[in-house]
Amino acid sequence: MTIHELLGIELPVIQAPMAGVQDAELAATISNAGGLGSLPCAMLSIELLEAELHRLTSLTDGPFNLNFFCHDTPSVTAEQHNRWRERLSAYFRELGVDPQIVPSGKPREPFGTEALELLETFRPKVISFHFGLPDKPLLQRVKSWGSKVLSSATTVEEAVWLEEHGADAIIAQGLEAGGHRGCFLTTDISTQTGTLALVPQICDAVSVPVIAAGGISSPQAVKAAMTLGAAGVQMGTVFLLCPEARTSPLHRAALTSEAARHTALTNVFTGRPARSIVNRLVREVGPMTPDATPFPTAAIPVTALRTAAESTGNSDFSPLWSGQNAADCCEMPAADLLRHLASGT
Amino acid sequence: MTIHELLGIELPVIQAPMAGVQDAELAATISNAGGLGSLPCAMLSIELLEAELHRLTSLTDGPFNLNFFCHDTPSVTAEQHNRWRERLSAYFRELGVDPQIVPSGKPREPFGTEALELLETFRPKVISFHFGLPDKPLLQRVKSWGSKVLSSATTVEEAVWLEEHGADAIIAQGLEAGGHRGCFLTTDISTQTGTLALVPQICDAVSVPVIAAGGISSPQAVKAAMTLGAAGVQMGTVFLLCPEARTSPLHRAALTSEAARHTALTNVFTGRPARSIVNRLVREVGPMTPDATPFPTAAIPVTALRTAAESTGNSDFSPLWSGQNAADCCEMPAADLLRHLASGT
Repeated sequence: MTIHELLGIELPVIQAPMAGVQDAELAATISNAGGLGSLPCAMLSIELLEAELHRLTSLTDGPFNLNFFCHDTPSVTAEQHNRWRERLSAYFRELGVDPQIVPSGKPREPFGTEALELLETFRPKVISFHFGLPDKPLLQRVKSWGSKVLSSATTVEEAVWLEEHGADAIIAQGLEAGGHRGCFLTTDISTQTGTLALVPQICDAVSVPVIAAGGISSPQAVKAAMTLGAAGVQMGTVFLLCPEARTSPLHRAALTSEAARHTALTNVFTGRPARSIVNRLVREVGPMTPDATPFPTAAIPVTALRTAAESTGNSDFSPLWSGQNAADCCEMPAADLLRHLASGT
Repeated sequence: MTIHELLGIELPVIQAPMAGVQDAELAATISNAGGLGSLPCAMLSIELLEAELHRLTSLTDGPFNLNFFCHDTPSVTAEQHNRWRERLSAYFRELGVDPQIVPSGKPREPFGTEALELLETFRPKVISFHFGLPDKPLLQRVKSWGSKVLSSATTVEEAVWLEEHGADAIIAQGLEAGGHRGCFLTTDISTQTGTLALVPQICDAVSVPVIAAGGISSPQAVKAAMTLGAAGVQMGTVFLLCPEARTSPLHRAALTSEAARHTALTNVFTGRPARSIVNRLVREVGPMTPDATPFPTAAIPVTALRTAAESTGNSDFSPLWSGQNAADCCEMPAADLLRHLASGT
């Protein structure tokens, strides 16, 4: 089965779900243009998720992808809690923020029964997961509606695991990719592999279709990824400047600056390794620090700092998610950009 | 000018110079088969270099590449010296080796006037450098013979620097590559970029031909790299099992084992980041440690440990250089493998 048949799409391109920088508008635009638009759901309350789903289905009749996280909910000891705030204490003083403040907004939560029940009424064509797959009963319910299930592998071992546990296609997430690494069998970032080396090895190891992700941002790169054996590609960073994205002005400015040349895998924003443009927090506290509390709790004090800093136009504490090639980002409407990117397929 | 004209080759493939695992035989075999064979020279005394050059020119009439390092010779404080040996002390005890022993064999030395004068009589078609370029007077002498000069860039900034300083072509060394990173403007490994993201950005930044390296090990990957804009490719790891390579039996065994799935950038073997299969020394002391003395001096005590361990068939302390895709390595004669790899170009 081709990826076109599996996912019900005309173009072999998935728009990567990017929590915090896009909503139903970008997803619907991509789906209407023949790709697979994705809605990041991990940071939405159940009420917001329902509202976004109504909006999405009002904007497109095409297939779309809903993305959820499926991490374990962590326990944080008092010592870990205090050490992380202590590590950040100079910034709290500098910005005049109370280190015990808990910002409003929903923390990232794993996929659960509440979302499952809501989704049953929408029966999306595709559901994708990050950090593995949910437990078998949840996954079976999702699959019983006919939804196709995707998840990301960052190593050959993870790809084999995902196929064995029921993924219908696997996103081979190369090291170049922006945002959170999907790694779930290991947190050792030395295991993370470049897209060009990862895709062929995963293609050899599994029999389901493989979707290449990480550093792909031009028609040539799309073609290169498919030459390596991928059935399709997933691209995120390249869409961040589109008018349909909700990327903040500070994030847009960073993406078009020289600073975008240097990204790093960092756990300072959430506790899990994710690729961001290197800014002050990454440089001074990271990129990787053992002081960050477990995902997603590290984000709580950082979000308080970020909110205060952003209010004065400062992105020193903002997660500036980006892959390793932001040079091809442009302000083109997403549908035009999608057609350009897929022009060689 | 195409890379074929520039380097005098039929196939757009350079065999990567790999110090310690190959000599003139592999280089001559590749050159005779239409690619550009490379002789790693950084670890050869002037007498051995001369002997290898006579051997190489007796084995091939084709163009070849001589590779040199051009790092700064470091000064090592007594404190650094002692700290590194202290860090390794348990291994010296375990293996019954004197930690102050200095193994025989030439340390890695930068390109200098002695080698320059020897080379003048051979006038190689191509000379490549790792860690930047030598000083202007040396470089001008080399270029005055008509030798073409290559060097590796691991970032866009390094590529621009190399073009400005006289490189005739640039090797875009993606993060996937085995052995030493060529980085020279920074030692921050978070700047290192996957091949798929690096090649297009370097192609956009310079006007000289760009040669892609890192994770390329199949005809499909060669084609993908050239689709990204590369004029040719450099491949090393894929040749390590060829009968013409001098890869040790222990290294060959590691490359064909499951262990080859996990490589890391590590400074434990030489003091500079280089990609090796993760073995005991990398796992227990690295992958990156501030205790290693500056390149290349960190290798002195590690070589003493390695020699003792290898004598009992143990590769716990051996640099097991490999890129991030050793899955395509095979024992095929190098000429056949070269033709296979280049079959899509």
